[in-house]
Amino acid sequence: MKEVVIGIDIGGTNTKFGYVDREGNNLSSGSIPTDKYENLDDYMDYLHKELEKCKNEIDEDIKLAGIGIGAPNGNYYKGTIEYAPNLKWKGVVNLTDHFNKYYDVPVRLTNDANAAALGEMIYGGAKNMKDFIVITLGTGLGSGIVVNGDVVHGHDGFAGELGHTIVKPNGRRCGCGRRGCLETYVSATGIKRTVFKLFAATMEDSELRKYSYNELTAEMITKAAEKGDKLALEAFDNTGKVLGLKLADAVAHTSPEAIFLFGGLSKAGDFIFKPVQQYMEENLLEIYKNKVKILPSGLMDKNAAVMGASALIWKEIND
Amino acid sequence: MKEVVIGIDIGGTNTKFGYVDREGNNLSSGSIPTDKYENLDDYMDYLHKELEKCKNEIDEDIKLAGIGIGAPNGNYYKGTIEYAPNLKWKGVVNLTDHFNKYYDVPVRLTNDANAAALGEMIYGGAKNMKDFIVITLGTGLGSGIVVNGDVVHGHDGFAGELGHTIVKPNGRRCGCGRRGCLETYVSATGIKRTVFKLFAATMEDSELRKYSYNELTAEMITKAAEKGDKLALEAFDNTGKVLGLKLADAVAHTSPEAIFLFGGLSKAGDFIFKPVQQYMEENLLEIYKNKVKILPSGLMDKNAAVMGASALIWKEIND
Repeated sequence: MKEVVIGIDIGGTNTKFGYVDREGNNLSSGSIPTDKYENLDDYMDYLHKELEKCKNEIDEDIKLAGIGIGAPNGNYYKGTIEYAPNLKWKGVVNLTDHFNKYYDVPVRLTNDANAAALGEMIYGGAKNMKDFIVITLGTGLGSGIVVNGDVVHGHDGFAGELGHTIVKPNGRRCGCGRRGCLETYVSATGIKRTVFKLFAATMEDSELRKYSYNELTAEMITKAAEKGDKLALEAFDNTGKVLGLKLADAVAHTSPEAIFLFGGLSKAGDFIFKPVQQYMEENLLEIYKNKVKILPSGLMDKNAAVMGASALIWKEIND
Repeated sequence: MKEVVIGIDIGGTNTKFGYVDREGNNLSSGSIPTDKYENLDDYMDYLHKELEKCKNEIDEDIKLAGIGIGAPNGNYYKGTIEYAPNLKWKGVVNLTDHFNKYYDVPVRLTNDANAAALGEMIYGGAKNMKDFIVITLGTGLGSGIVVNGDVVHGHDGFAGELGHTIVKPNGRRCGCGRRGCLETYVSATGIKRTVFKLFAATMEDSELRKYSYNELTAEMITKAAEKGDKLALEAFDNTGKVLGLKLADAVAHTSPEAIFLFGGLSKAGDFIFKPVQQYMEENLLEIYKNKVKILPSGLMDKNAAVMGASALIWKEIND
């Protein structure tokens, strides 16, 4: 009888899930649309059916050890999703209670970036580290901070929102309602905004000038950079400069051994890693210099969000 | 037989010490000049003699449980002081080894602000808190971050240097060799620099204009503010604005229940607490708003540094 954990990654558009064993193997996986279900009960009903289907595809005898969930604004202490702007379920939703109507096993919930940090620790590049940070670069910027071998949840379960530290008072408007947040500069959307700012600020010729704001993607900026497009390269340099500066601040808080970059924008490789490393070093206090590694996530090509969510349970069992 | 711990606070000018019991009572205390001893062996010899004298003044039978030391650039893991700019012992000094030549008890060392955070947890206002931050406002700005009941040391023992997070790239020059550090704006020296900036920037009449840079102290700025001096009030507002902004960033890292302000500048009361609270709230992400208390240290009028240093040992015994 093989012990498995259901890992679930709830995103604004899709919910991905999988049955993950202790070694991080995904025995069976699936996905449903999140945004089709305005009513949480309907969503749960459909998700449960799909999870059962998914289970039947596994050949071995399995025993369910628990369910781990990563979700935006997920609260680890309460098992709730609270005021998540990109989900249709409004206010405070007690998600773990809903799962316990279907499953009599431990259910744990945290935000998606914290789950990514756990995944990095259990299955990825941070296996032997006790102090590190994971930065997820998607539409926004998420972060999970690990101190002394545990994800930092803070007194209220919401710690680790580096995407909403302030780069510049009265800077770019953010989806959170404030201004100047890190993720308005450093994310797939952030670098796109930077490209359009450079269109206005410079006369630099660029193949990117032919695209509308709605058309342009971070991947297109990376492709242009690969071809030596100067404006694209300048956009990456600016992005790395802002992230490097704020990571130097993050180091002054928890002094991590490494900072892992994860998600879409991190696939740009040296275009993003080199300036981040350079500008972070320039801004580090002397005692921290040449100590902190900037690394690609060890889970880059795997279903990291699902693995990270499952790690919520495996970590508890291991401890 | 009463168990006691020697708490030692090593500053650039003076070394203070005391025999502290489990309840935080200082049974006997003393002080020697730090800067008179260029040679560490001479310093240790003299300190040991004074500690013995100090012990003889205690009436009860005592048993020494350990020695806790707070020192600038103190490294908790290694027991070393490393490259402390304000001490005469250069490079890396293994202080705990030196103490063990005289005492066969556990000796623990950390930086002074981390010791203050421990003191707050064991004896002060954070007795029932597991996640909080202590900001020490002296000549510079120190910080101790507590996560899940433990001081954050980081992978290298040097975590918690919020005084050297960057407020403004290319901003004010800092003693650390970089520019724009928080402590160049927020500290006894920082507010003084702000007053002199306001002398230049405004035409505001002020009683402070009669003092030279060398004469002016933070206490004089507080006294002027108490009398309604507008320039002094503006200096406090500016100082609170910068600290509030950076504390909002700190909350986005570890989401503490409270932030304690400690040391000289915090004695200015509402002049500093009100703007810090206001500007921090303005800059907090929605999920953190109206949750984080800004509090005066519960050790304000006690020999907090010595108590905090002793707490290094008591915390270990309690755990």
